[in-house]
Amino acid sequence: MQALIAPRFARRSERLTSSMIRELLKLTQRPNLISFAGGLPAPELFPKERLRAASQLVLAERGELALQYAPTEGYVPLRELIVRRAQVASVAATIDNVLITSGAQQALDLVAKLFIDTDDEVVVEAPTYLGMIQAFTLFGARFAGIPTDDDGILPEPLADALDRGPKLMYLMPNFQNPTGVSYSQARRERVLDLAAQAGVPIVEDDPYGDLGFMGQRRPTLLALDPVRRAGTGVPFARGNVLYLGSFSKTLAPGLRLGWIMAPVDWINKLVQIKQAADLQTGTFTQHLAYEVARDGFLETHIDQIRAVYGQRRDVMLAALRANFDETVTWTEPEGGLFLWLKLPPGADSRALLDAALDRDVAFVPGAAFFTPDVPEADARRYLRLNYSTMTPERIEEGIARLAQAWRAF
Amino acid sequence: MQALIAPRFARRSERLTSSMIRELLKLTQRPNLISFAGGLPAPELFPKERLRAASQLVLAERGELALQYAPTEGYVPLRELIVRRAQVASVAATIDNVLITSGAQQALDLVAKLFIDTDDEVVVEAPTYLGMIQAFTLFGARFAGIPTDDDGILPEPLADALDRGPKLMYLMPNFQNPTGVSYSQARRERVLDLAAQAGVPIVEDDPYGDLGFMGQRRPTLLALDPVRRAGTGVPFARGNVLYLGSFSKTLAPGLRLGWIMAPVDWINKLVQIKQAADLQTGTFTQHLAYEVARDGFLETHIDQIRAVYGQRRDVMLAALRANFDETVTWTEPEGGLFLWLKLPPGADSRALLDAALDRDVAFVPGAAFFTPDVPEADARRYLRLNYSTMTPERIEEGIARLAQAWRAF
Repeated sequence: MQALIAPRFARRSERLTSSMIRELLKLTQRPNLISFAGGLPAPELFPKERLRAASQLVLAERGELALQYAPTEGYVPLRELIVRRAQVASVAATIDNVLITSGAQQALDLVAKLFIDTDDEVVVEAPTYLGMIQAFTLFGARFAGIPTDDDGILPEPLADALDRGPKLMYLMPNFQNPTGVSYSQARRERVLDLAAQAGVPIVEDDPYGDLGFMGQRRPTLLALDPVRRAGTGVPFARGNVLYLGSFSKTLAPGLRLGWIMAPVDWINKLVQIKQAADLQTGTFTQHLAYEVARDGFLETHIDQIRAVYGQRRDVMLAALRANFDETVTWTEPEGGLFLWLKLPPGADSRALLDAALDRDVAFVPGAAFFTPDVPEADARRYLRLNYSTMTPERIEEGIARLAQAWRAF
Repeated sequence: MQALIAPRFARRSERLTSSMIRELLKLTQRPNLISFAGGLPAPELFPKERLRAASQLVLAERGELALQYAPTEGYVPLRELIVRRAQVASVAATIDNVLITSGAQQALDLVAKLFIDTDDEVVVEAPTYLGMIQAFTLFGARFAGIPTDDDGILPEPLADALDRGPKLMYLMPNFQNPTGVSYSQARRERVLDLAAQAGVPIVEDDPYGDLGFMGQRRPTLLALDPVRRAGTGVPFARGNVLYLGSFSKTLAPGLRLGWIMAPVDWINKLVQIKQAADLQTGTFTQHLAYEVARDGFLETHIDQIRAVYGQRRDVMLAALRANFDETVTWTEPEGGLFLWLKLPPGADSRALLDAALDRDVAFVPGAAFFTPDVPEADARRYLRLNYSTMTPERIEEGIARLAQAWRAF
């Protein structure tokens, strides 16, 4: 059977640790375990009552439409809502710039199909989003992982990598998974200038951009893109950025709704690719999301999520300060779901995980988030901690257990 | 921009007529047009009331679960329901043999990713399903289209094609799209024997299998597979068939729910590929489909669909007999949504379409359903007619108009 399958799949990276994470997620079902390993939004915040009312309305008023096949591009009122939100964020898009996807993960698959052939180079942050590594690896991508600091990806090594003529850049400038870091304004502009000079498209993945704890939003790369701004008068005829958005963290991930916002030429090709991939994203859930989000509900709801996650972030940071000495450091994210902890030289977070599991606490070792081009030793000192799904009491208890494991280790 | 995209996409087939069909579907929105061009299930039969009740129940009783991320394999009760229905049809599967997909179209994408590399040969029926041509072409498949008769694919040319060592076979043995033809029992067994001898996996696409108008069901290739039956005692440890199912024609296509049933080794690989493609199929719609289908509702509902489509098929066949002479022939499908009409030698269904549109009636010219390896001239004489979405009066009027167009032509 093995001989039959496509080499592309057979030779995928050994570092592709999805099976490790799946095993870990199984462990996390132990009753007493406190898991910082997940990446789930808080389920108690899902807008269940609003969804219940939306289900009734949609089925009663336009059930035949909402349950039928529909155009690949997506439900027009939902695309219009996305366009209006983008306009508030200084992006003069139209619905022709928007393709609804089955979650932002599918957007990665479609973009990979459009751009990546075997052995094409893709420039990414080091560390970066695990799901992107999985999606792009299946198409034979080689990665160039570029180091980051507290302002984002480092311009000098990025410029060197762009000189080699890669196919694509993949960046998460807001509250990155796994580090929680956001790019400074200056870094955003520098990256865009480098991309424009090199003529390399940027995939801007922004699932957490709405979740800034102070309500702050830095402009997206899409909004700042000099190629787009220097366009032809037709909004979005050109551009260098493909922006990926998601409703998974602002409404609910079980709806599987995301979108790509990009120049029309690319959108038209991505529509054809999506048609071959799954015809269209679910009609019913698109109608539901529109009915839930409309009339300002989404903005009010996002404010509520921000407040809850911000408090949980505060609790985790305070617990880290109370339990660890200065040999261990961490990021202080201003939004999103994660922070990123760094152990002293020589420590290995995978070994720490064993000690942590003995004390019923879990996390994801940092090595999972680095592409295969990054030296293994650089990856070992890190771990990712999620704070979105737990009560303050559980966060405090979990960090205390983690510190015990670290001291024993 | 063109230079940046992956060659795989850039050199897709010129015969890939999705844009033609999209244009056609736009035309079909003309108010007086009678369209036999679509492939939609009848929306008046969607189980709206049952879905309304299911939405209430799921959100009230397990909303946090039904809106959260969930395992890639799919919702266990829904997979159990699929397994129970397969067991009734003599397939001893377990839920480990079932992966829920975002419609059966996604199953084609996942199977292509697993098996097909550039220039791999895939054996298909001629004509065959357009969406498969689109999905497989993106991965660089070359096709070998094998002629069919009223009993299914022809064994002799199939045997010759299998001698060349293709990667995969793709077959639709029940009420095929576009022809409506079903394989005879003998042809099923012959095809399976040939596949087992050659060691070539069969993708059995079966979206219409439940829609036999007499309630009849021939055994699926999956049920008959000698490789599976000669297994190791572990159900489904081996096998030669990947079966694709769909709820699009039995519940509603806007839910985007299908499944793959296959040996566990393949399912495990397909799960990893699906994880990279879209993480999982929508949690909420899987919960809804289970609640709607359970307790025998699905079987009762399918009986109703069969009765309505069977009547529409009867009306179309009677109208064809009343309006066309013996120079034009057609299939007499025993189930499904389509029949296939053949014009006399020298006629071209694309030219007929222009004459038909002048009389406000539409269909899809047969050429769209042939792979590029089939000589163009063989494809021109055919057209596909859909009968599932129209009242008997509209079907009669539309066939009368089509006959006028044919006589004028």
